[in-house]
Amino acid sequence: MVRVEGRQGASHLTVARSTDGATNWRIDRSPTMTPLSGEHPEEVWGIEDPRIVWLPDLERYAITYTAYSRNGPLVALAMTSDFKTFDRHGPITAPEDKDASLFPRRFDGRWCLVHRPVPTTPGSKANMWLSFSPDLKHWGDHMVLMEARDGSAWDAGKIGLSPPPLETDEGWLVVYHGVRNTASGAIYRIGLALLDLDDPRRVIRRATDWVFGPTEPYEFAGDIPNVVFSCGMVADAGSGELRMYYGAADTRIGLATANTGELLDWLRISAA
Amino acid sequence: MVRVEGRQGASHLTVARSTDGATNWRIDRSPTMTPLSGEHPEEVWGIEDPRIVWLPDLERYAITYTAYSRNGPLVALAMTSDFKTFDRHGPITAPEDKDASLFPRRFDGRWCLVHRPVPTTPGSKANMWLSFSPDLKHWGDHMVLMEARDGSAWDAGKIGLSPPPLETDEGWLVVYHGVRNTASGAIYRIGLALLDLDDPRRVIRRATDWVFGPTEPYEFAGDIPNVVFSCGMVADAGSGELRMYYGAADTRIGLATANTGELLDWLRISAA
Repeated sequence: MVRVEGRQGASHLTVARSTDGATNWRIDRSPTMTPLSGEHPEEVWGIEDPRIVWLPDLERYAITYTAYSRNGPLVALAMTSDFKTFDRHGPITAPEDKDASLFPRRFDGRWCLVHRPVPTTPGSKANMWLSFSPDLKHWGDHMVLMEARDGSAWDAGKIGLSPPPLETDEGWLVVYHGVRNTASGAIYRIGLALLDLDDPRRVIRRATDWVFGPTEPYEFAGDIPNVVFSCGMVADAGSGELRMYYGAADTRIGLATANTGELLDWLRISAA
Repeated sequence: MVRVEGRQGASHLTVARSTDGATNWRIDRSPTMTPLSGEHPEEVWGIEDPRIVWLPDLERYAITYTAYSRNGPLVALAMTSDFKTFDRHGPITAPEDKDASLFPRRFDGRWCLVHRPVPTTPGSKANMWLSFSPDLKHWGDHMVLMEARDGSAWDAGKIGLSPPPLETDEGWLVVYHGVRNTASGAIYRIGLALLDLDDPRRVIRRATDWVFGPTEPYEFAGDIPNVVFSCGMVADAGSGELRMYYGAADTRIGLATANTGELLDWLRISAA
């Protein structure tokens, strides 16, 4: 699943398929999921940054995406089983909110959403929040999960979830982006944290350092320089290989691989 | 119910009582409802701007207020029957959100909240939204109710609900504040709209002009000049008299009266 900007600049989603997930991509000839501005005025300016989670209980993929309009970006939900037809559930947050993903299962009977609202008040920051829902439609018990750090840390500007949380033996592996604002622009890097498997409100550990940042020419330069930004990754349960697909400088799509066990080991050391 | 700022600047609520609603106010000697920062970190910087609605079905007053912290202002809910003890329900929106009130009854089985989220994206505005809930805890179906106007209108900067909606024979009377940003600061004025009694998503009419704005010295000058801002009004069903209590320049509390029928007549003409 790839984000493609049309010539008019209204974002939409287009499916790309590959047998090995790395090469020989076949990209759908026309956009797969486009804004439905008639029924859904909240997405008249486009749909962006989908996080896709398989929900075993519902036998559907849940797509949480940014719906964009003059009323501000917000999180909307769509469901699909085939990536051909999509059932839109509409806004599940008010604006301004982005970078949202469901967890694949319920906790104490409720679904859980990670998201990133943006306050405007001086002194406040864009942090990662959790909300809970009995029905995927009505959400409550909003609470801060992780805050942007203070000072000149790599994730002091703002933070937000990157790919959906990944279930591991040790907990939910959270891959998040952090922004550092500098005099010459923002740098988007990626860090790691771990949440309790049974209670995602509990942060077990969070790495002090970033684990992945712009180092290549196509990450340094593009529409938005110095950005690596991921909305999706795939874990191979057998080999432990993790494949992270990411936007490079908002212009190209890159693939980075790691070993899940090694990431968890690194996180244990880096958070110490 | 009066907003009082403590010397440290953390807002709280203090009850004031009067037999005629106009004179001889007795103000509680100590704050009636203060931030509970231990259990409720969302209000560690204070609680502000309560909208109070009697819910006949629950035989309780619902207080929707702005809870303030470094994570940004959001809407929280508390319930009370006596204004001595308060049951806190915590955040019912994510930040940034303010100016919220319940309607006193359900629509198609769900509670309805007016609120005012604030998007930060260039070109977006702070508008009035509706959300719906089966249980007062989980909220969804977020939608725009009314937008700030364009250009140099009195309500082009941002808008938000002022007192809770008032049920009349013609519909829900909505008293809202509109902001015009000028080179020398913002002007907060008050306007009127009418919503369908059975479906508050439907705006029947909205006045073009404002109906109440700063004209007196204590409205022109104070902590925040050129502001009239109301969070509460009381209607006398017999006489039709409406009493609106409002903050004047964020420094004093004023009382303005009107006749509900005359306001509805004016609204019909002004919206034409």
